Order: sequence, then structure tokens, then C-alpha cells
Amino acid sequence: MKIAIVGASGYSGEELIRLLSKHPEVELCSVTSRSLAGERVSKHLPALAHLVGDLEFSESSPEELAKNKAIDVVFLALPHGVSFEYAQPLYEAGKTIIDLSADFRLNSPTNYKKYYGKPHPAPYLLDAAPYVIPEISTGWEEAQLIACPGCYPTSVLIPLIPLFKTGLIKHNNLVINSYSGISGAGKTLRDDLLFKNRNESIKAYGLPVHRHLAEIQEQLDKAAFEDVKVQFCPHLAPINRGIHTTIVVPTHSKIDKIYANWELAYASSPFVNILPSGTFPETQDVVGSNRIDISAVHDSTTDNLIITSTIDNLIKGAGGQAVQIFNKKFGFPETTGLL
Amino acid sequence: MKIAIVGASGYSGEELIRLLSKHPEVELCSVTSRSLAGERVSKHLPALAHLVGDLEFSESSPEELAKNKAIDVVFLALPHGVSFEYAQPLYEAGKTIIDLSADFRLNSPTNYKKYYGKPHPAPYLLDAAPYVIPEISTGWEEAQLIACPGCYPTSVLIPLIPLFKTGLIKHNNLVINSYSGISGAGKTLRDDLLFKNRNESIKAYGLPVHRHLAEIQEQLDKAAFEDVKVQFCPHLAPINRGIHTTIVVPTHSKIDKIYANWELAYASSPFVNILPSGTFPETQDVVGSNRIDISAVHDSTTDNLIITSTIDNLIKGAGGQAVQIFNKKFGFPETTGLL
Amino acid sequence: MKIAIVGASGYSGEELIRLLSKHPEVELCSVTSRSLAGERVSKHLPALAHLVGDLEFSESSPEELAKNKAIDVVFLALPHGVSFEYAQPLYEAGKTIIDLSADFRLNSPTNYKKYYGKPHPAPYLLDAAPYVIPEISTGWEEAQLIACPGCYPTSVLIPLIPLFKTGLIKHNNLVINSYSGISGAGKTLRDDLLFKNRNESIKAYGLPVHRHLAEIQEQLDKAAFEDVKVQFCPHLAPINRGIHTTIVVPTHSKIDKIYANWELAYASSPFVNILPSGTFPETQDVVGSNRIDISAVHDSTTDNLIITSTIDNLIKGAGGQAVQIFNKKFGFPETTGLL
Amino acid sequence: MKIAIVGASGYSGEELIRLLSKHPEVELCSVTSRSLAGERVSKHLPALAHLVGDLEFSESSPEELAKNKAIDVVFLALPHGVSFEYAQPLYEAGKTIIDLSADFRLNSPTNYKKYYGKPHPAPYLLDAAPYVIPEISTGWEEAQLIACPGCYPTSVLIPLIPLFKTGLIKHNNLVINSYSGISGAGKTLRDDLLFKNRNESIKAYGLPVHRHLAEIQEQLDKAAFEDVKVQFCPHLAPINRGIHTTIVVPTHSKIDKIYANWELAYASSPFVNILPSGTFPETQDVVGSNRIDISAVHDSTTDNLIITSTIDNLIKGAGGQAVQIFNKKFGFPETTGLL
Repeated sequence: MKIAIVGASGYSGEELIRLLSKHPEVELCSVTSRSLAGERVSKHLPALAHLVGDLEFSESSPEELAKNKAIDVVFLALPHGVSFEYAQPLYEAGKTIIDLSADFRLNSPTNYKKYYGKPHPAPYLLDAAPYVIPEISTGWEEAQLIACPGCYPTSVLIPLIPLFKTGLIKHNNLVINSYSGISGAGKTLRDDLLFKNRNESIKAYGLPVHRHLAEIQEQLDKAAFEDVKVQFCPHLAPINRGIHTTIVVPTHSKIDKIYANWELAYASSPFVNILPSGTFPETQDVVGSNRIDISAVHDSTTDNLIITSTIDNLIKGAGGQAVQIFNKKFGFPETTGLL
Repeated sequence: MKIAIVGASGYSGEELIRLLSKHPEVELCSVTSRSLAGERVSKHLPALAHLVGDLEFSESSPEELAKNKAIDVVFLALPHGVSFEYAQPLYEAGKTIIDLSADFRLNSPTNYKKYYGKPHPAPYLLDAAPYVIPEISTGWEEAQLIACPGCYPTSVLIPLIPLFKTGLIKHNNLVINSYSGISGAGKTLRDDLLFKNRNESIKAYGLPVHRHLAEIQEQLDKAAFEDVKVQFCPHLAPINRGIHTTIVVPTHSKIDKIYANWELAYASSPFVNILPSGTFPETQDVVGSNRIDISAVHDSTTDNLIITSTIDNLIKGAGGQAVQIFNKKFGFPETTGLL
Repeated sequence: MKIAIVGASGYSGEELIRLLSKHPEVELCSVTSRSLAGERVSKHLPALAHLVGDLEFSESSPEELAKNKAIDVVFLALPHGVSFEYAQPLYEAGKTIIDLSADFRLNSPTNYKKYYGKPHPAPYLLDAAPYVIPEISTGWEEAQLIACPGCYPTSVLIPLIPLFKTGLIKHNNLVINSYSGISGAGKTLRDDLLFKNRNESIKAYGLPVHRHLAEIQEQLDKAAFEDVKVQFCPHLAPINRGIHTTIVVPTHSKIDKIYANWELAYASSPFVNILPSGTFPETQDVVGSNRIDISAVHDSTTDNLIITSTIDNLIKGAGGQAVQIFNKKFGFPETTGLL
Repeated sequence: MKIAIVGASGYSGEELIRLLSKHPEVELCSVTSRSLAGERVSKHLPALAHLVGDLEFSESSPEELAKNKAIDVVFLALPHGVSFEYAQPLYEAGKTIIDLSADFRLNSPTNYKKYYGKPHPAPYLLDAAPYVIPEISTGWEEAQLIACPGCYPTSVLIPLIPLFKTGLIKHNNLVINSYSGISGAGKTLRDDLLFKNRNESIKAYGLPVHRHLAEIQEQLDKAAFEDVKVQFCPHLAPINRGIHTTIVVPTHSKIDKIYANWELAYASSPFVNILPSGTFPETQDVVGSNRIDISAVHDSTTDNLIITSTIDNLIKGAGGQAVQIFNKKFGFPETTGLL
């Protein structure tokens, strides 16, 4: 498969280059970056020096990419609001598009407007683009434009969706606390992202309504067949990579039923690692991999289920999951290039 | 005042030495450590080298301390379960005891047995020892034995108690997530506390029932005049010091009322720093101080109040709060030796 | 003493506010910042919230400060090249000036031009301003303008100067490697200072000629009475504060003589902490204090002396040392406000 | 090739499992650990969960391994002093042995005794075992027992050996300062390796004579054809992985000649990444890869060459280099399983 990565200079783009340059079924044809066009990838992403040789960033416009017959699949690793500009012409030109931004993650244009403050510029693409959690979603493989889940939502939805689908947990009081490594904030020159301001420090942000709540809410409502009351509290933690999520949700189910449900739902999912109850996942164990580690305990005093999950925000939460989707779409084994 | 610190080689003990060696109203007479008796403090706590001169750890037994006429006040910085052994003879001998352990924090022997798995060895002392949050508690100044709050509870109770007392928040669904720096686990040689195992990693622990829940539950029930349903989720974060707590609690009150309540409750509390709604406290801003920083937002969709708070677990959460209690008990200005 | 701090919003300025707001002999009259004038100090330096009350940054021009009769002493915590603008009018107006920048550290205008690439704008002030290491320098107390040493030089000169003065070490091959915490780079919005770029990483910079070499070279040449051949290699390490310096220097002296020399030179220096040979100082033990910890070993195979030293770059390397100089100049005990 | 890893529970062993479980030419038959025999690898090395399936640690004795016909090659990831016990019977049994310990790194039994304090227990194996830097060593491919270089020496020898061989640098005053991530100290439960003791701190250790000096000295003397005077100063830095080395060495050569020499020496070395003079390698760019990044500047004032280099201590400094040696020995492309 002939591949282009658009927006390749950011953290997710870097991860895509790393993964796709080693992927046995892929020829990496083009990596684009407006700001770095004409410069060597190895100069700006020195960690990739042994992988990329003399590869340079190109400046392909959406139109050029759309016209380029040598490209089959385009990964968009762009900020939300920018993906549109590429997705539309590429879609018209018949390319397969795997979009890592938030631009096509919501199903409902109403929700989009609510969370992003303006109407969606291309509602017909919103309609065309399935939201794909590769372990859960079905019937999406023919889609030409695919929306990859966000990093926080990945850590939340994989443990929760099967439980909501089977009615094992309640919808009336879900509290999610997530702690993200600093790379989750993107490659941005901001005061609060300086080493001195983040090292040895923890803070909450984006309360009470973070944008990732939109897709969490939409997917959980769909799974539960009713409105789920969700409180989502994101935080920044002084680590480079990784998300740790702690979910408190009322339940009437014993812990054994929870685990049986998970074991069934993820029996054939190589990247879902279910830890025994009473064992707690740690971010360092998933960093560098496409895994999600999950476990749960039940509190008999409160009748709450407490789930903890960990992912690498740039792999399972971004580039790795996109490659996993690519593998499934084109019939390669799910783990190709991801071990 | 003539002071002894028992258990001075741990993290809280070190903080007490630092604070009390600079306190203008205190003469630091004795710092004890069973394992380091006879050794120089500066050798084992090198950060204090410029403060302690030739001071050595002594090995005073409970009985010797009790008999020592030259000592007025004893700070106990011992693990829970060990404080008893000192508290009892010191109490009989008429010393003032400020205890930083969990041994006297609960009011109810029944609760003690529930959380610690055995009956309390000296229930009459439990009865004698008030649990003192210096900003909140009243009528305790004559007590001879005082129980200092734990680190997590400090970060939880200061923001919540005035709100429960005035009925501004609901009791049916309180979810608390706390992230503690590694010093919170104590000076213990444990695999999971090695640098390589904690650096760049986050994990939950002690779920679903951490021992600090006992005092949180007891104090909140008392403040709310009814049973509060509490879920408390502690985590370890890769920072040396500091606790960040995020509290989600249902409310029927507007954010202005919450703030008005706090402003009133803490109008004369120099160490309670109320940040504007929408601003979020960070652990690095309180580390090294005896402050607690708090703020809150209201989510109009869920009708939850979300409170975040930060403290230095070894100062406001341990040694500093103990000195603050000492100041209030003996009529010194609250901030003496704490700025 | 009535004090102003100019350039108070940077890291050194923050440290000066912290120290001087607690200093018993000081009234902190004015803290200036061009960019933050009119804003509350506690908003921008939230760690100081309990110390500064409602204090605001002011925008006093050099001329206003010079005319202000209510101010006796001005601490300049400005970038090099900017200190001039304030020092000149303040000097003319008879104020005492303690300058933390590099503008007056060199004695020789020729050296200044060599390292800074342009002539010194006020050579007569260069002449008037002694370079003061409070443990070493003498006869400077009457000076009206004082140059405080840089952070790296402090960690280098305190261990080396007495050894060079007495000829115990050789001048022909001195190699210095220093590792600085990230705050040493100043409060600057630069890509390489982002958390993600510094965390878990170490790099050299400024090789082969860092500007701090200028004052190191000048002071060592003076102490040795001959030209010392110095290689100075600075690095950035992923810690907030602290400098660790390792010095390799040929010697014909036994380690006992080295230690005897140090013990004599620093017998009455409360902030110089000489550790036994074979013990190695660690940055965490000095962070938060005005101490320098030093030790040395001798290698009988190479006949090199290896010295290691640690300081807090913002205290002993900046604000604390400035206060120590202030104390000595005005006859207060050296440790006032610094314990 | 059928492979066993002995001592697989340590950091280097874990890295070998990670690399060899993905190596296309390898069947990983046995991973041994005395202390963990019978336990699942994924339980104790949870980061490998997606790679190792149900694999268990075995307890194979040296004799059992020696007799096991199903094993061709044994990687020894044991502490020094323990490798002997395995190497001897395996050697007799005709197995190929790639040893990551220090037991066979020295050529001279005299040197061994000097640095390790006792005679080498099997001098004939010392003789049989070449010390192999895969980019430099020649004529070793037939050897049955191979000694892999240590982590610090790898970062030192790759940049220095070609320069010494061609006489471009001088032998009389070499000063090496290395900073290692904490994993370099091994998986050991030691007070000074606790998070609280290493985080935010830097210290030197092992001065003046670290054991890695032995192999550095022997290899440099051999390359220079004369005695090189080396001062080696190791330090611990608060990062998980990575070594940063700064080398100061007198030279009479211009920087262009240095670079030309390197370019020639490493023209066909995919893992040696030569950065332009004035650019400085950072540890984070090599962590996770088998690369070494090197660069140099010349100081015209001191006539010193200053070289900086970075490696991942567990990959290029241990497991990765061992696999690279394995690849070269058995004729696989050098990068197999290492990209």
C-alpha cells in the first residue's frame, strides 16, 4: 500500500512515521508538513534518524495529494479544524482517509456545534465517516473515510462499552478521572508546557467540559441505549507519554460478571490486556506498545465499580490505533507492524 | 517550649526537624530514632546540614522520654501502630503529645476495628484525643493529646467540611480521586518505590478501601449529619511531594454560593488559598509551603460541583500542620515558623 | 532597610521576593516588572501567595527608582545587557545596587568585549563594581555597586580558589563538567525548554565557550597568579533546580592537604559544607538552601584531583547569595533570612 | 536459530526478550531466572505482555542448558562473577555464548585481578573470548564465546577508537564524564535507588576508579599503541534510560579531520549517527533505539576536542548490541530485529 502522512511533524505524525516506516505492507511515499517542507525529517525528528534516511517533509497541498495517483491511503495527523481541508478533496478523489483528528468523530452535527461552537463544515462527511474502535466497531471496513478515537476516549470506551451494552453498569453517575502525559497537549510552545512549569506538578484543566467528552458521551449513550450522566475530569501529569484513567460507576453486578463480560468481549483482541482484579495497571507498562491494560474492583460498601485503564496516548491513543484500523481495513493481521 | 521529635528519621520527622529548628519559640531538645541512635542527623538527613549542626539521633525509650523533665511537648512521627507505645506513658506523665500517626484519628473504636482489623489498644486515649484540623476544629486547645489529620484527608476535608455543614452539597455520591507524590508512601525499601518503577508512571493503589478513607468518612458524616457515600481513589504520581485531589459531588447550589461559603469559613485562615473558579491549583505552587490551594467549578449539565485542591503532603499534610496545631494550642500566631 | 527588586518576575527575582519578604531587617517596598506592571504578584508567582498578600508589580523606570527617596537598596534581577540601564542612574543617585546579572562581573573591559562581542557601555562602573563571593572576597563592603557571581561560577570557584591561591593544584589542565537544572536557562518560551523536550533527556550546550567561562577564567587566573587552562562543559539535566559540578584538575598534593586547605578557608563559612572524601554531594540535598556541598577524591594513577560540588542555582547561585552579600555589606549576621 | 536467555529477569534480560521475541530469525526457547522460575514472564515484566504470551521463566542449571540439544545460542544477562558458572559448561558443550556481563571483557588476567580484586577463575576463556564492538572489531566471527562491551565503554570507545588509531588525538589527558539513567544501576533494592532519592537529583559515584574503566583503559591503550591517561567520572541522572558522555581530549587536529575520520570509519555502520559539529546529541533521541549519536567541537583556546555521545544503555549499551553481534556472527543483516 502506498501511504502519505499529512501533518507529520507533530507527536502523532512522528509516531505514524515510526510505525509505518517499519510496516512490512507499506511504502511510505510522502510525509507532509507545511512549516518544515523541504527539510529533512531526521533533523526535526532526530529520534527517527535510523529509520528515515534522507526522507524530507513535502508541502503537498490537499489538491496535489488528491491528484497524486501514487498514493492509496492518507493518514491525517492534523489539528481539529484543519483535517477538513484535506479530507474533502481526498475523499472526492477516492483516496482512503484515516483521520486522527476530532473533525469526524461525532455522528451528530448538533453535538458538533454544541462542543465546537460552530456548524460542521461538511456534514455529509460526518455521515460518511464511521467512528472506529477496532476492538468494538463492526461493519465499517468498506468506509472510505474513518475517524480514529481520541486518546482519552480510547482509555474510557474500551472498558465501558461492553459493560453498558449488556446493562452491567448504571447510567446515572459515571465519574471519569484521567491523567495524561504532557505529549497529550500537542507540540505547542505554551508557557504551561515548559519543563519548569510541568515537572514535579499535577493540575486539572478543561473542567467542567473538555472536548473529548463529546465523543465519550455520544458513544456511551449509544452503547447504553439511554443518556449516561458523565463527569469527565482531565489532568496533566509530569510524564512524557501515557494516560491513566480511573472510572467510578454504580453497578448491581458482581466483579466476576464484569470480568466474564470483558473476557468474552475481548477474547480475540491482542491489544486488550485484562489484569486480575486487585492488580492495577501502570502507564509505564504500556508506553511504547499498542496495548490497553484494564482491571476493576467492586466496592461492596458503595456498590461502585472502579475501573482503571492505561494506554500510550501516542500509540493506542493515536498512531498505533490508526495503523491497527488500517490493518483491519485492508485485511492484514491486526498486529502487523505493531509488535 | 522544649520539644522532642520521636521517629525523626522518616519524611515527616525530617520536615518537623526542619521547621522546629527554625521556630523562634522552640528549643529542639531531642530527636529520636531507634535505628539511627548515636548517629549525626546531618549524615542521614543531609539536606538539613546547615540547620542541625552536631545534633545526634537519640534512642530514648517511651519511659525515658516520659521521665525527662526537660521536655514539654512531644511530636510523634511514627508509623501507625507504633505511636501507642509512646503516647500512653507520655500521656500519663503529663506531656503534651502531638501525634502525626493514624493511631488516634478516629473517634469510634468500632471504626478503628473495621479499618485496622483489630480492637484499639487504648480506647480511652482515642476518646481523649481530638482530631484537629486547625482551620476548622474548635474547643480542642486544652487537650493533652492531639491527632493530626492524614495527608489525603487534609486535602479533602478542608474544602468539603464547610460545604457539608451548610448543606450546600449532597451526600449521596461523592467521588474523590487523589494523586500523591511518592514521599507519601513513606521511607520504605520496596520494589514498587524504586525510581525505575515509579518514574514516568502512574498507578492506582489501595482500591477500593484505603485506610485514610476511615477518617474522611468519619469527619464527613459528622459534618453532614448523615451518612455520606464516599468513593476514595488514591494514586501514586511521579513527583517527590504534593497531593492533587479532585472531588466530584452533586450539588443544588450555584458556584457563587460555594465560594461565598468558603470565603466566610476561611476568612481568617492564612494557609487556605481560594483560587477563582476556572483557575486550577497545581502541586508545584504549594510544595514547600503550609498552604492548601482550592478552587471549584459547577457543571450545569450534570449538576456536579468539581473541586480541586493541592497540598504539600509533608508540610500541610504532616509536619507543617502539626506545627500549626502547636502554635494554636500554645497561643503563638498561627504562622509562626511556617512562612 | 528599604528594598526594591527590579526584574522580579523571573526565577531569580521570584527567589529574591521569597527570601526578602521573610527577611527580618528588610522592608520590601517595590517589585518591578515591565511586562506585569499593575498585576498581582500572587497571580503570576502563585507559589508566593502566602507571602506577598496584595503586592503588585510596578513599572518603575530607572529614573523613577533613582529619584525614589524611600528606597535604599536595589536588587537587579535582570538579563545581562539590561542591568546597565538601571545600574547607571541608580548609581548616580547614590543607591546601593546588588546586581545579579553578568553586566559587571568581569574586571577587564577587554574580556568583556571578547565574550560579549561589543565594548562595555560603562567601563567606569565595571571598575567600581567588585565581584563578590561572600566566602572569599574581602574589602568590598564599602562598594556601592556589587556584582554577584553566576550560578555555574559559584559551584566552581568556591572549591577551586583556595586551592589555586595556595598552589595545591596545577594550572595546565582543568576540566569542568556542570549539569544544571532547567531553571538555569531562565523563564523563556523556547522549544528546547518544553517539558517533552527536556524530560528524560540530557544534553550538552554552549560548547566550547559558554559565557560563564569568562568570569571563571578571570577569577581563577587571579587566584593562581598565572593563566589557567580551563575547559568548561555545561549541560542541561531534567531537574527543576540545582547544579552538579565535577572538576578534574592535576595536583601534586595529597587529599589530606586539600581538605586541610578547605577546612581552613571555610572554617567560618556557614554555607560551605565539606563532605568527607569518598562521599558525593547530591543536588537534592542543597535545593532549597543557600549551601554549597563539596568533596574531593585523589586518583593516584592519574594524579588528578576530582572535586564534586552542588548548589541550588536559584539560591546559592542567585537570590540567596545576593541576600548573603546584602547581609555582610550591612553588618547583619551572614545567615539572616537564609536558614 | 534456537536461543536461550539466562538471567532474563533483569533490565538487560528484559530487553533481550523484547528484541529476540520479535527477531525473524530466532526461536526463543528458554528464558531462565533462578528467583522467578515457574512464574509467567508477563507477570514480572508486564511491559512485555503482548509479546510473550504464556511464556514462563525456567530454572535451567548450567548443566541442563549445556545438555539441551535444542539450544544453539545462549545470551548470558547475568551479573559479573556469575556468568562464569554458565559460560564454562556451555563452552565445553559447544554452544555459542554471547555474554553481556563483565566476566570476559578484559584480555589481561592481570588487569582482571587489579580491577576485580581476585584472579580470573578461567583465564583460558578470557583468552578465547574476543571483546566485540560490532562497528570496530574484526576477525571475531568464528569465536564461540563473545564478550559484549559495557554500557559506558560503548559510549566512549565508538567515538574514540578510530581517532586514537589514526593518532588524531593525544594520549596524555583524557577526561570522560558520563551520566547514566538509573536503570544502569541494575534491578536492585537499594536505598539510593528509591524514587525519592534519585528524582530531582544528580550525583557522582564510584570515583576515582569505576570498574568500567578497566575495559576502557585496555581498549584505548590498544588503539593508541601507548598508555592513555584516562579519568573516568560516572554519575547518576534522574532518567530511566540513556547515557550521555562528554569527552575532553587534547588534539592537534582540526575538527574537519576528526569528522572525516569518523565518516570513513563508520561509513557502513547503520547505528552510528554522526551529528554536525555544534549540534549536541540528546539522550531522548536514542532511547528505544540501537543507535549511538556522536558529535564534536574543537576549542581553539585550549586545543581540546570535546566529544559528546548518547546511547540507550539497555539497547546499544546491552541487549541491542548483543543482538547486533549475534546478527553479524550468523550472517544476518546487521539491523535485523533492531529497527
